Amino acid sequence: MTTINDTVDYIFGMHPVTEAVRAGRELENILVNKEVHHEQMRILKDLAKENNIPVKIVPIEKLNRITRKNHQGVIAFIAQITYSNIENIIPGLYESSKTPLILILDRVTDVRNFGAIARTAECAGAHAIVVPSKGGAPVNGDAMKTSAGALNNIPVCKVKSLKETIVFLKQSGVQVVACTEKTREKFYDLDLTSPTALILGSEEDGVSSDLIALCDHKAGIPMYSPIGSLNVSVACGIIMFELNRQRDLNPH
Amino acid sequence: MTTINDTVDYIFGMHPVTEAVRAGRELENILVNKEVHHEQMRILKDLAKENNIPVKIVPIEKLNRITRKNHQGVIAFIAQITYSNIENIIPGLYESSKTPLILILDRVTDVRNFGAIARTAECAGAHAIVVPSKGGAPVNGDAMKTSAGALNNIPVCKVKSLKETIVFLKQSGVQVVACTEKTREKFYDLDLTSPTALILGSEEDGVSSDLIALCDHKAGIPMYSPIGSLNVSVACGIIMFELNRQRDLNPH
Repeated sequence: MTTINDTVDYIFGMHPVTEAVRAGRELENILVNKEVHHEQMRILKDLAKENNIPVKIVPIEKLNRITRKNHQGVIAFIAQITYSNIENIIPGLYESSKTPLILILDRVTDVRNFGAIARTAECAGAHAIVVPSKGGAPVNGDAMKTSAGALNNIPVCKVKSLKETIVFLKQSGVQVVACTEKTREKFYDLDLTSPTALILGSEEDGVSSDLIALCDHKAGIPMYSPIGSLNVSVACGIIMFELNRQRDLNPH
Repeated sequence: MTTINDTVDYIFGMHPVTEAVRAGRELENILVNKEVHHEQMRILKDLAKENNIPVKIVPIEKLNRITRKNHQGVIAFIAQITYSNIENIIPGLYESSKTPLILILDRVTDVRNFGAIARTAECAGAHAIVVPSKGGAPVNGDAMKTSAGALNNIPVCKVKSLKETIVFLKQSGVQVVACTEKTREKFYDLDLTSPTALILGSEEDGVSSDLIALCDHKAGIPMYSPIGSLNVSVACGIIMFELNRQRDLNPH
């Protein structure tokens, strides 16, 4: 029941998908036909919720475009990577005397931007990328490809709530910095030598204001063009390599 | 005789193309069918050479894919931008008390990388992008799109010889820095506050060694991953914004 179509693996059929969820298999999401309403579907939805797997209601045509086989209104995409747990990563970094560098992505939905950010973050030595379990880019074949393999190396953590993760990081001694245009604070005026998590937002909206409110600092990149805006993976590289510059010159 | 197909403008037919070249119209390149050998073609090729327009010999099928109209074995692509002259730009910058920041691209043939670099360079306030008249990426619709409009704002200079341009820049008091992995010199250890031209190479090969030999400095970006490599537009952003950081802290 597992099939490969070019870049993604998926499982289809009510029973196989339900059993995969029960078995704790890592799934990106589950697509469900909006016209299926029977008891087994309710059970599957509850199980998916418990296991933090997004369920998307879609028209039958969308499912039929993925496979013409008997999907019974249910197709689940298998995760391309094994997700990690940020609550295990941070203590591990401290134990091995590393200064954490964590990247948090808020509503980065574009798959190629996500892949490009992962590539940049890996080059910069980031220890983990944190994404929300809902509303992030799917870690699919395109993301893997754009990341130039980086997504096989850098841990990715899916969390239910970015807010809770920010609170956890701050309690763990990690300063949280929002990369935003809505500040006059320049990224190179911040001290980035201590444990740091950097939040990047979508190219359209940036980091959401309720997350910015929880952060220790805002970091702006001064623009030298009245109309230009940087690609989010370029912005990521600029700030992370400034952090590396500071840490290289002032090692702990 | 001028037609738009989605993103590019072109002219076709022996006489219209010859007249366009004679009139000094800016053309990206001219595609010529290898089976056309008559006198008029020889004249066109000579004119193109005089005007520094690359001529590519292609099979008839390639021309037929562009237009089914009577192209007579000749199609010319119209430049999407008006090219500038680096030898005019540098004195102009000094006259207006600006500290030059020039970007030179060596064999960056990927159209999207070229567009992304232009976007980043414009945000960083670069004053011009220098490309070779042969072997660079075409400034086509895809490049314009990936640049997010930056190619409408930042001057692009096509030069016959990057070597001659490097010599000209050095004679004009501009230090020339090659961005390369083949050095232990870190980009942030360089003084980038004086007039600077930065050379970036292709993602595959980097800057060619004969150009590196002419440069004042090499700039390496230390990698924190054993296998990773940065996208060229990200590398461009990291070094250009380090230059801006230095110039902001130590204005001339």
